[in-house]
Amino acid sequence: MRRQAVVATVGAVGRLATVSVGEDGAVLEVCWVGGRHARFHALWLRDNSLDPSTRGPANGQRLITIDALDPATRVATAEIGDDGTGVIVRFEPEGLTAEFEASWLEANRYDRPRRRDWGWTAAGVERWDGASMDGRLARAGYSQVCADPLALARWLAAIERAGVAILHGVPVRSGVVCEVAALFGHVRETNYGRWFDVRARVNPDNLADTNLGLQAHTDNPYRDPVPTLQLLHCLDNSVEGGESSVVDGFMAVARLHAEDPPAAHLLAAHPVRFEYRGSADVWLRAKRPIIEIGPDGELLGVRFNNRSAAPWTDVPFDDMPAFLSAYRRLAEIIDDPAMQVRFRLAPGDLFVVDNRRVLHSRTAFGGEGARWLQGCYADVDGLASTVRVHRSTALADTVADTFARRGAEEYLGEAVSMAEHMAQCAAQAEAAGADDELVIAALLHDLGHFTSDLGTYSAGATVDHRHEIAGATALAGLVPRRVTDCIRLHVAAKRYLCAVEPQYRARLSPASVHTLALQGGPMNTAEITAFESEPHHADAVRLRRWDEAAKDPTVTAPPLAHYLALLHHL
Amino acid sequence: MRRQAVVATVGAVGRLATVSVGEDGAVLEVCWVGGRHARFHALWLRDNSLDPSTRGPANGQRLITIDALDPATRVATAEIGDDGTGVIVRFEPEGLTAEFEASWLEANRYDRPRRRDWGWTAAGVERWDGASMDGRLARAGYSQVCADPLALARWLAAIERAGVAILHGVPVRSGVVCEVAALFGHVRETNYGRWFDVRARVNPDNLADTNLGLQAHTDNPYRDPVPTLQLLHCLDNSVEGGESSVVDGFMAVARLHAEDPPAAHLLAAHPVRFEYRGSADVWLRAKRPIIEIGPDGELLGVRFNNRSAAPWTDVPFDDMPAFLSAYRRLAEIIDDPAMQVRFRLAPGDLFVVDNRRVLHSRTAFGGEGARWLQGCYADVDGLASTVRVHRSTALADTVADTFARRGAEEYLGEAVSMAEHMAQCAAQAEAAGADDELVIAALLHDLGHFTSDLGTYSAGATVDHRHEIAGATALAGLVPRRVTDCIRLHVAAKRYLCAVEPQYRARLSPASVHTLALQGGPMNTAEITAFESEPHHADAVRLRRWDEAAKDPTVTAPPLAHYLALLHHL
Repeated sequence: MRRQAVVATVGAVGRLATVSVGEDGAVLEVCWVGGRHARFHALWLRDNSLDPSTRGPANGQRLITIDALDPATRVATAEIGDDGTGVIVRFEPEGLTAEFEASWLEANRYDRPRRRDWGWTAAGVERWDGASMDGRLARAGYSQVCADPLALARWLAAIERAGVAILHGVPVRSGVVCEVAALFGHVRETNYGRWFDVRARVNPDNLADTNLGLQAHTDNPYRDPVPTLQLLHCLDNSVEGGESSVVDGFMAVARLHAEDPPAAHLLAAHPVRFEYRGSADVWLRAKRPIIEIGPDGELLGVRFNNRSAAPWTDVPFDDMPAFLSAYRRLAEIIDDPAMQVRFRLAPGDLFVVDNRRVLHSRTAFGGEGARWLQGCYADVDGLASTVRVHRSTALADTVADTFARRGAEEYLGEAVSMAEHMAQCAAQAEAAGADDELVIAALLHDLGHFTSDLGTYSAGATVDHRHEIAGATALAGLVPRRVTDCIRLHVAAKRYLCAVEPQYRARLSPASVHTLALQGGPMNTAEITAFESEPHHADAVRLRRWDEAAKDPTVTAPPLAHYLALLHHL
Repeated sequence: MRRQAVVATVGAVGRLATVSVGEDGAVLEVCWVGGRHARFHALWLRDNSLDPSTRGPANGQRLITIDALDPATRVATAEIGDDGTGVIVRFEPEGLTAEFEASWLEANRYDRPRRRDWGWTAAGVERWDGASMDGRLARAGYSQVCADPLALARWLAAIERAGVAILHGVPVRSGVVCEVAALFGHVRETNYGRWFDVRARVNPDNLADTNLGLQAHTDNPYRDPVPTLQLLHCLDNSVEGGESSVVDGFMAVARLHAEDPPAAHLLAAHPVRFEYRGSADVWLRAKRPIIEIGPDGELLGVRFNNRSAAPWTDVPFDDMPAFLSAYRRLAEIIDDPAMQVRFRLAPGDLFVVDNRRVLHSRTAFGGEGARWLQGCYADVDGLASTVRVHRSTALADTVADTFARRGAEEYLGEAVSMAEHMAQCAAQAEAAGADDELVIAALLHDLGHFTSDLGTYSAGATVDHRHEIAGATALAGLVPRRVTDCIRLHVAAKRYLCAVEPQYRARLSPASVHTLALQGGPMNTAEITAFESEPHHADAVRLRRWDEAAKDPTVTAPPLAHYLALLHHL
């Protein structure tokens, strides 16, 4: 049997169609296959050159300074490399030649429309209220996140996305909250110590230590920089009441802004003061706005804490009535039960909040029993670093490991192995000009066969192992939502196609016909409507067609390493 | 001998002349003795009431929330208390009565003009370049700051003021840099550990570990929050070269803004990106502006680091050329030797920089010998807290202790003791309606008699012990500059008055005539011109007149506790 090689190409956006030099060499214009184009300034390109005299090969640090570059730097010549994956640029008067990869240019183009609307947030940030977060608070087991970097990354990614997540089964031992912080970053030590106790006391220095209810708040706004993460670990909670609740400050800001834009703008336009003098040796103060907006309009943070708010003296007299009204309205939104997600901490539970956005509180509790939490602070930069590393490394490692250990397994009686099927599916996507996300979705669409709690399919299986759900769950938070949506929907897409394209069913392999029955058969009308309301259903249908075509024993797909590079880039 | 009591009053700004209620109770207008006036909104006053149902008496935390207050809150009645030091306000519809001190209202008035010019900095922040900082870098001994809270506070205050200070005599022992951080705050642990070594290496992960020179930079702009303090401790520096240098980024921004305001605005208008991937398990990124400006125009920080600057993709295409030009110009200003202060670290030296503003660098060094530094990060909020606590507590303690232990000493043969003289001088200032700063300057003008390295004066002294310099030095950074200026100039003011008011000399006591000769006699014309160019020379002259009048054995001044309260308030 002679195997036919599928030509490996990168996705369409990764290949260049044309390049041209304009404005006397001051600007390079790049057009990618597919029609996207962008301009780059010669000086910007030179400053960001990746050649080893510009960037240290070991660590990527820039070795040159901006004022050492000739301000008249221009692109003398620019040529597309042989395979269209890069452009070779010669800079004058310096005479340096450097290559820029098409995908690098794509990722770093700045000649593009950008969000500048007030209070925008990054694509991965999800705002929520009580209804939208109900039952969706990210939860994981402590032993699981300790043992499995991917489980850890998924749990951390939920904190990046929603600003809150819960861990169960944390050892009930004093100080262990710092060990949890060490899983992803570094404890921010303060005057409260590396960690601190929160218990009911009779003559407390801090309201958190009484049994009164607390208004939802961000912690320690009197510090600057404010701690960006807070961890709270429950060691005992045998009181009545004392439920925890969280509110998304970013959603509260969005609600205020939707209701009354000038009110939201006002809370961002003037700083306020916070102060803490709880003991003789501590006198902390900060002056920062309640709503922090970056220079490009991005919503960066919320500070809200009635207890430590000092007299506000930075708001001009004429603005003060409107400022206080806006503050009151924000407080009302925050106090609105519809904004809250409530949960009761049991011993061994721990929750983390992004203290730049998620407010936390607890209800009042009764005198019987005890309530003992331990808290510590940490910072999100370390958390984000850990997610990035695990996303790129642990995910790739896991995929490689799965392919190596399990890839040779039989694929439901088809003529190709599991690994061959998945790689062929990715190759089909590439050949169709799909972008990187869809190629990766194609590659990983059957990953759930290896991760399902119900085990691997066999050709004679009589129950559906829901491998599409298992795969999407394993990857949640680690790849873009579109990738997990395509994976989650690729079985539904088969049932959909069987319903709307009668001739499609005829093309299914016998194994696919067998599982179709287990999966519920062709969709009914209601199921079709629901499927078509999914934002990525069309991508899932495309993936499904590649899936069907990826069972050819005469074909050799590109090696996994080719796709791992794409995954890394994602 | 019958002693006559001097009536103790607080400074003029601390006493109320009239109060009135306007806008149907929505506004309270307050006029202080001396003519200053300000309005306060009823709701603001109610929210900031200091009564025990509003603020927890133990720790000052607010017990109420804004949305629990009636938006129609108004001032029903307002009356000045008996001695004019406060106003008693009744709020309706709630019916709460609360007292607001005149000095509290003065300190917290928001009905005032305020700075909104681009890039302003707080009054205590001093911008500097090489010439203005030459020989003025704050230095202290490690054993001194460990033993004396005032010495520690003075040294820390220099970091608050100028963003940099040096410590000598730090033990040459690994890890001790963290002990220095613990003197005033908390180590910010990072992926580099609690502390880290900076040594020459062959295949470094980080340019700081090579023997190349470095462009002046702020550290770790790829973290968010960025560490706001960096400490660097020298354990070995036997190489050739390897000098340290620091540049005030706030001054660099001021220079750029003075030359080309739109350039400075542009660097604040768009965020840029910084990235660090020096090891497999770390991938840090931040997106923040090079020049960070608060919503009220305050200059909050500078991020400048060519090595970790990632491709900048948040600047719109059309702005990029001007943005790069502005960045280049800022780099040129930073590289200008006129901006630098250089020093060579010897083993046991340690320097601290405020990493939000002061850039550091080092020159290249040669291969003989070794260069070994250890660094750690910390945050300025803890430092500022320590300065505040020591300023208010340790300074008052030191003054009280000095008065108690030494106050009974003879005052150069005058008929009053040292303590009586100083308290009388303060009482004279109060009686003249001086503000708090001048009253404190009057109280402490002779503190240098107790702190001068040359010891206490005696009536028969034959050299000048320069007690005015010793006093100003002891208080530097702990009280406002105007106070130390008045103290420093109070002897010069005597020489000045003797020159410009011939009849003044006739009023001097015999002891004062004796010391006048030691101090240089009446000023000559050049000295008069120089004296009159001092910004606070007129205040120093007022102080001098109170000084002469404060030697009356028939008078009893208010007790020291009265002035310690003023000092605390300062």
